[in-house]
Amino acid sequence: MNGENVGEDIFIGVLTISDRASQGIYQDLSGPAILQVLTEIISSPWKPISLIVPDDQKTIEESLIHLADHENCSLIVTTGGTGPAKRDVTPEATKSVCEKILDGFGEQMRAVSLTKVPTAILSRQLAGIRGKSLIVNLPGKPAAIRDCLLAVFPAIPYCIDLLEGPYITTDPKIVQSFRPKK
Amino acid sequence: MNGENVGEDIFIGVLTISDRASQGIYQDLSGPAILQVLTEIISSPWKPISLIVPDDQKTIEESLIHLADHENCSLIVTTGGTGPAKRDVTPEATKSVCEKILDGFGEQMRAVSLTKVPTAILSRQLAGIRGKSLIVNLPGKPAAIRDCLLAVFPAIPYCIDLLEGPYITTDPKIVQSFRPKK
Amino acid sequence: MNGENVGEDIFIGVLTISDRASQGIYQDLSGPAILQVLTEIISSPWKPISLIVPDDQKTIEESLIHLADHENCSLIVTTGGTGPAKRDVTPEATKSVCEKILDGFGEQMRAVSLTKVPTAILSRQLAGIRGKSLIVNLPGKPAAIRDCLLAVFPAIPYCIDLLEGPYITTDPKIVQSFRPKK
Repeated sequence: MNGENVGEDIFIGVLTISDRASQGIYQDLSGPAILQVLTEIISSPWKPISLIVPDDQKTIEESLIHLADHENCSLIVTTGGTGPAKRDVTPEATKSVCEKILDGFGEQMRAVSLTKVPTAILSRQLAGIRGKSLIVNLPGKPAAIRDCLLAVFPAIPYCIDLLEGPYITTDPKIVQSFRPKK
Repeated sequence: MNGENVGEDIFIGVLTISDRASQGIYQDLSGPAILQVLTEIISSPWKPISLIVPDDQKTIEESLIHLADHENCSLIVTTGGTGPAKRDVTPEATKSVCEKILDGFGEQMRAVSLTKVPTAILSRQLAGIRGKSLIVNLPGKPAAIRDCLLAVFPAIPYCIDLLEGPYITTDPKIVQSFRPKK
Repeated sequence: MNGENVGEDIFIGVLTISDRASQGIYQDLSGPAILQVLTEIISSPWKPISLIVPDDQKTIEESLIHLADHENCSLIVTTGGTGPAKRDVTPEATKSVCEKILDGFGEQMRAVSLTKVPTAILSRQLAGIRGKSLIVNLPGKPAAIRDCLLAVFPAIPYCIDLLEGPYITTDPKIVQSFRPKK
């Protein structure tokens, strides 16, 4: 077990991407839904940094860069803007700020969502690496957010180990995180 | 239910991509196979626009642009040219004319084909959005065309709703289309 | 059955990508593991060409080009460097030397690995075509190498047929290779 980064501060960015929520036209339900699921999953102390922005590619990119480079978030999760509509640009923004794309996240999240709704194939959710941050696009709907986070979270603590980030632990009753033996 | 686009004209492009069929060396069986499956699936009135072109990237791109921008096709399906061989350039042409790629379509079509033949992993089928058109690459063989269309069609009417296209209905005995509640 | 390339020489490149193995700091176990599995699978006579290189993108690219263009390898398998860490650049190198990417290989290898470990989604393994060579990224660990090779090999002989390469046969007790009827 790599214990050298145990006890380091863990910051997690939660980025809600929605034209209407960012203008206060309606309440952001997705950001709070993410916080609630992360609170259930993560047993290490961690601090959320939440932002709400409109569906504008440049603004999303700047927010992701801010959360990764200035707030030192080990994990950044987004919600919204991953569909096929014209205003949906979250994957484009994510891809443009990441050095590496991890196709397995999108594949698994779509596979999990597909067991619930056939329109899961319309989701362009992806995940990637920027520096020491893992960025994961989640769906917009609270129920789908929970399914997707539970599906991919077992791999997230080890991914952050590989990025030399803090040592994250999970509540095994909710998520069994997995670290391969060396 | 979003009923505002009910009754609007529905045009569907069917693009057969084959050097030999385009030269009349052999008969195009794939285009007619697509028309037959679409006729079974779609219960709204619709009009097909069929083209046959050789495996030439520029020609395929021009045909896709024509069907999308000038013929106003809400859905364009292609057949042929998605393998690993040198002349197979349909995915390249599709990618180059689309603004968005929907990875879930390729994943699901390969997953479905993989239950029949292990060579399904050789298929580079993809789907994407150009303006208000959804473009979907189907395989070349009639039996595989049917499997793939039935697999992804449940999500297509809602996708076209999101692109602000016409309201498409399906025969529920063949395909249960799905529209999430708002 | 296309018998015209039966009996042609079959060369297979095995590229181990590891900073430490390339410096002799530890022994390469992955390259030999690949040779062993290929020996079990392939029943035609074939010759391996093995190389060990560090996790350096330019060096990996040059090795892949050498194996494809100068050694005429029909199949090139790599091991190592497909994770999310900074030094992992095998997929980048592979993508940059290939004309076509076959997404189905990565999808299927991750799906198979996912039945064993949830961290399979961190793997960025891909496969692609350069000229007449099929290049496949395998994982770094011997057990995972075997699972992935067995999963994708049924499609490999036909893929090499489509690239106009030699006719490869497999031991049906280990891998049932599949060639669709024309």
